Amino acid sequence: VSAAPALVAVDWGTSNFRALLLDGEGRVLDRREAPRGILAVAGGAFADVLAAEIGPWLAGGRLPVLMSGMIGSRQGWIEAPYAATPAGLSDLVAALAVAPFAQADVHIVPGLRTEAAGRHDVIRGEETQVFGALAALGIQSGSFLLPGTHSKWVRAESGKVVGFTTYMTGELFAAARDHTILGRLMPDSRPSDDAFRRGVEHGAAPGGPGALLSRLFGVRTAGLFGDIPGEALADYLSGLLIGAEIADAAPAHDAPVRVIASHALAEHYRNAATMLGLAVEVLPADCIVAGYRTIARAAGLV
Amino acid sequence: VSAAPALVAVDWGTSNFRALLLDGEGRVLDRREAPRGILAVAGGAFADVLAAEIGPWLAGGRLPVLMSGMIGSRQGWIEAPYAATPAGLSDLVAALAVAPFAQADVHIVPGLRTEAAGRHDVIRGEETQVFGALAALGIQSGSFLLPGTHSKWVRAESGKVVGFTTYMTGELFAAARDHTILGRLMPDSRPSDDAFRRGVEHGAAPGGPGALLSRLFGVRTAGLFGDIPGEALADYLSGLLIGAEIADAAPAHDAPVRVIASHALAEHYRNAATMLGLAVEVLPADCIVAGYRTIARAAGLV
Repeated sequence: VSAAPALVAVDWGTSNFRALLLDGEGRVLDRREAPRGILAVAGGAFADVLAAEIGPWLAGGRLPVLMSGMIGSRQGWIEAPYAATPAGLSDLVAALAVAPFAQADVHIVPGLRTEAAGRHDVIRGEETQVFGALAALGIQSGSFLLPGTHSKWVRAESGKVVGFTTYMTGELFAAARDHTILGRLMPDSRPSDDAFRRGVEHGAAPGGPGALLSRLFGVRTAGLFGDIPGEALADYLSGLLIGAEIADAAPAHDAPVRVIASHALAEHYRNAATMLGLAVEVLPADCIVAGYRTIARAAGLV
Repeated sequence: VSAAPALVAVDWGTSNFRALLLDGEGRVLDRREAPRGILAVAGGAFADVLAAEIGPWLAGGRLPVLMSGMIGSRQGWIEAPYAATPAGLSDLVAALAVAPFAQADVHIVPGLRTEAAGRHDVIRGEETQVFGALAALGIQSGSFLLPGTHSKWVRAESGKVVGFTTYMTGELFAAARDHTILGRLMPDSRPSDDAFRRGVEHGAAPGGPGALLSRLFGVRTAGLFGDIPGEALADYLSGLLIGAEIADAAPAHDAPVRVIASHALAEHYRNAATMLGLAVEVLPADCIVAGYRTIARAAGLV
């Protein structure tokens, strides 16, 4: 067992840059984080940013660098085109993109695309977390939920990602709270389990897609009539959207659905899922490390 | 038949002030419009604004003034509390609020509230349009659609408003376009009937309330994959939301649903409704005039 550096893994997203220095066993030797997401990199100077952030790790010699996230999008450094589902490790490896960088070989994990009912969907970054979770759990099949700005429900079978669905839950929550009349009745928000639970119940109730448009107005009337205190309305809105999301997604997935998220968000989803009869299991957020290691191995980088 | 002024009718909303000088037959003798909605009136100086706008009409003597809209809300001049459904003309009249104004007697039409499945809904201003439409058409029952920022579907029976549902369609469209990732792919929008129709079809397809959250993300992928040209994505989004709204609301209403809206908006809804097999009839937008006249008569003001 060696503690010698073997791989640099970089999660380079829209807002943040996160790098890990790993040894051959996937242990974290060092880490760097900076608010230098791709939107904060001026003039395409990705190589300069990377050199500044991980340069010291490369002082002792070349190391393979494996990246995932929006760095591989059209707005990133080098586009790593989406690989189509079903996609296994070998498909990811075959679609790795190479970025020009003098001090190291830099590979970028492609995102995935899928199609259902004539409509496309995409993930970018979450594929690395899912392959990491499969490896960490030692399983080949299962369902994964990666909630957030864009909530992703991913299904794996026989070691391949076979499909997924994106819900704009987090982003719609923020847009509704900050840029519609609903926010006017939410001056000082405080957490409210009760309001969240009522939201989940109302959001998951039967109805068509358009019912969400009327239930959103119901957040306003719940405030107007004092059904829910103003400071709890944001949690009611959150529950409404998360309840609708889970009720729509759950039938296509087998329990337990594995949730990969920060602690607070994972607890919100766990509570809502439990209310709606869906068994979930919250995974440690660091399963992305196993993803980098697994992909790097399959690619022969380590 | 006299052309003598008999009534001042004021539609005083959030953003705009619109006043009509009517004769005893409901004919419009004069009109005033100003961007002096209730949010633009500083320090509660509603009486000053009203005097400035309609003062000249009162030079020849006192006239009754009848107002509707947000001027009767908690943020307005005097609160005219919501009357409960079922609500007929006599219920509106009984709930008229009186505002303090030296030069004339000022009455404010109350909004309406309803309750379904334990949740409240409200309208304020639309009740006057609906009673005007009933009077203008000479009917006692029917369904009305008043689309816009908040789209209202209103059902009348035996001369009373018996229920209604609000959809946040217009406001959610604006929030999604202007404040989410969806707007990034919509640099220069141009009208596209084709994209709108595809949106209606996708928005009205079967699914649960949460399906709207994934279909919204589909606006992004439709742009990413070139399924719909960038300049047509806004119309696709509009169709998606309007299609979802109509599919959800239509089953609770009898055709023809009467649409009260500006020309362009009414045509969008007419096209979408026709696609979805719902017969609609677009009413002239000035049916609100008949509403003021009908309510004023019932109140003995004219």
